[in-house]
Amino acid sequence: MPLVPLIDYDKASPEARAVFDDIKATRKVPDVNNFWKALAHDPATMRRTWESLKQVMAAGALSPLVKEMLYLAVSITNQCEYCIHSHAAAARKAGMSEAMLAELVAVVGMANETSRLAAGYQVPVDPQFKPYG
Amino acid sequence: MPLVPLIDYDKASPEARAVFDDIKATRKVPDVNNFWKALAHDPATMRRTWESLKQVMAAGALSPLVKEMLYLAVSITNQCEYCIHSHAAAARKAGMSEAMLAELVAVVGMANETSRLAAGYQVPVDPQFKPYG
Amino acid sequence: MPLVPLIDYDKASPEARAVFDDIKATRKVPDVNNFWKALAHDPATMRRTWESLKQVMAAGALSPLVKEMLYLAVSITNQCEYCIHSHAAAARKAGMSEAMLAELVAVVGMANETSRLAAGYQVPVDPQFKPYG
Amino acid sequence: MPLVPLIDYDKASPEARAVFDDIKATRKVPDVNNFWKALAHDPATMRRTWESLKQVMAAGALSPLVKEMLYLAVSITNQCEYCIHSHAAAARKAGMSEAMLAELVAVVGMANETSRLAAGYQVPVDPQFKPYG
Amino acid sequence: MPLVPLIDYDKASPEARAVFDDIKATRKVPDVNNFWKALAHDPATMRRTWESLKQVMAAGALSPLVKEMLYLAVSITNQCEYCIHSHAAAARKAGMSEAMLAELVAVVGMANETSRLAAGYQVPVDPQFKPYG
Amino acid sequence: MPLVPLIDYDKASPEARAVFDDIKATRKVPDVNNFWKALAHDPATMRRTWESLKQVMAAGALSPLVKEMLYLAVSITNQCEYCIHSHAAAARKAGMSEAMLAELVAVVGMANETSRLAAGYQVPVDPQFKPYG
Repeated sequence: MPLVPLIDYDKASPEARAVFDDIKATRKVPDVNNFWKALAHDPATMRRTWESLKQVMAAGALSPLVKEMLYLAVSITNQCEYCIHSHAAAARKAGMSEAMLAELVAVVGMANETSRLAAGYQVPVDPQFKPYG
Repeated sequence: MPLVPLIDYDKASPEARAVFDDIKATRKVPDVNNFWKALAHDPATMRRTWESLKQVMAAGALSPLVKEMLYLAVSITNQCEYCIHSHAAAARKAGMSEAMLAELVAVVGMANETSRLAAGYQVPVDPQFKPYG
Repeated sequence: MPLVPLIDYDKASPEARAVFDDIKATRKVPDVNNFWKALAHDPATMRRTWESLKQVMAAGALSPLVKEMLYLAVSITNQCEYCIHSHAAAARKAGMSEAMLAELVAVVGMANETSRLAAGYQVPVDPQFKPYG
Repeated sequence: MPLVPLIDYDKASPEARAVFDDIKATRKVPDVNNFWKALAHDPATMRRTWESLKQVMAAGALSPLVKEMLYLAVSITNQCEYCIHSHAAAARKAGMSEAMLAELVAVVGMANETSRLAAGYQVPVDPQFKPYG
Repeated sequence: MPLVPLIDYDKASPEARAVFDDIKATRKVPDVNNFWKALAHDPATMRRTWESLKQVMAAGALSPLVKEMLYLAVSITNQCEYCIHSHAAAARKAGMSEAMLAELVAVVGMANETSRLAAGYQVPVDPQFKPYG
Repeated sequence: MPLVPLIDYDKASPEARAVFDDIKATRKVPDVNNFWKALAHDPATMRRTWESLKQVMAAGALSPLVKEMLYLAVSITNQCEYCIHSHAAAARKAGMSEAMLAELVAVVGMANETSRLAAGYQVPVDPQFKPYG
């Protein structure tokens, strides 16, 4: 099904292998996900994506758990099967309970409904929402 | 610009007015947003949407702040102008700082990028992500 | 705001002008919408789009009113401002009442909500829904 | 493949079971679809979604058949596999013929094409389309 | 899995068969793709879609290779599995190398990320970008 | 209208100012676009996004012109007003003629139409499209 063959560690280029190593060390996992094995075809994109994710998903003003839940909410909205499965797993690992998952899915559903109610009536933005307008 | 005239409180039907009253009392605000003034054309949908939002956005396993941020993440992914403005305002009111907004936007950006990397290579879901498959 | 200047009838090429004439005669209107004045930059696409719309939107197993409402439902889902305004106008002209508009918007909202509930839980398609699987 | 195990009637909570019973009685079917068996993990969302669908999809200014076709048009636009299969089945049950399905698919296709033509040229909305602007 | 049975050449109507013949002759292939076997249920849409594709995808100001890559970029953005597979095959046939595919996927990823950064901050369009505003 | 005030060069932090400088030097422009003035609120994201764009949009197996056109095709599919205007400007600067723009828009339109025809009939992927399946 993939558009390119997945590349395992021992078949990867040295540049890709360095990213494999960093992912495995950072996440303390014995192997990387298929996502990275596909990206291994393009080590520059693989490296850039991994460095970006490390920066974006690190603890900051938001916790890693909240960030993973935001990632999952976007993935569900985009209906991206791979993303939903991989980020649900990551969010669970970061502490998302089944009750939190259920509330997340309910919020995502409502947000997709009300966006179409707003669009359907072409509701103009309230002036008080535009402090810098 | 709206597809229907916005209906203010004094022009609203008794059914719509009851929802106006409940929103104003619940949120402790003197008036409702344009979204509700558009929905006032359809009191049944207005009532149902308001009751649903009260249920979905209430504190539970997730805090109202996290829920508002999830709502905002979906709104940005959908590129819904009205939703972005109204839920950014709600999230700020619930405690979202500017640093949290910045991190949220960065996560939403990355999630939309990696979903297309996964789609572009048609990456198959890893077996370990499918515990109930 | 447009990416190309809108072309009026008297500035249009003969090929574009022929499409203007056909639209005006078919719809019994004195002028065409901005959509066509933008497409007039590319008479081949203008001609093809117009011929396609005439074929697709003609009365058949579905009435023109139902077709315009389907068009509007898609436009709201896509949150396409131009499409929402132009097809709401067309649907109203074809007989859509304000009560029908309200029900349409409510259905579109629900369909966008439940699609994310289904995606959020990655619900597998029921075998009985796949008669040709 | 689902993110949560599907819950059958005999494993469901009393709250979920009450919704199962209402769906089966209302639709006169011996069992509910997988969608509901997934939602059974969150009886509050299950109940709310079912009550909303009953309200939204009931005969009103639009017939149940037209409503199911609108639902299907949104589902195709969203490319939601589960929704397409379940609402195509529901629309067929409500009277959608194969000729109607073909016309619906053609309209949805055109609406998705012309929305990008309008976006591609950033066509400004015609003043006559904005009666309340 | 399809919503309608796929129709092979020998079961197709004369109108559909004529399109089969034209596709096979134009593309110099022994059989047509499943896409056309599904559309064969609606020969008018099948004919129109084929004629439109021949016009749109022909060499012009853009080469067939660039056009196929644009098609693929849209398909990835839409996360349309069928479209990604069929247009990746078509683009490869038209000369897309694996290095070009990798760069295409990276561009599509970035474009989907930055669109949400722009939406997330609701960045106003710069005046110099609107020459006809 | 922006969700945060735009930050000009002289109000920017040293980290953001360094990115302003690099953009201006690389693009040989006297000022940066609003996109960067919004991102200046989050210098880490601003820096990362700029470095990523430099890497992704550089000449490689694909020319900068083709890359800008792919970016524009994605932007139109996403109906992102800011992205359409800024990347149409960039593509024109890189050599996109009006005839090329017209063909690009037509391809994007068709790709969005046929993706819904494929989804509408749930067309299964042809085995020959899955060389690594």
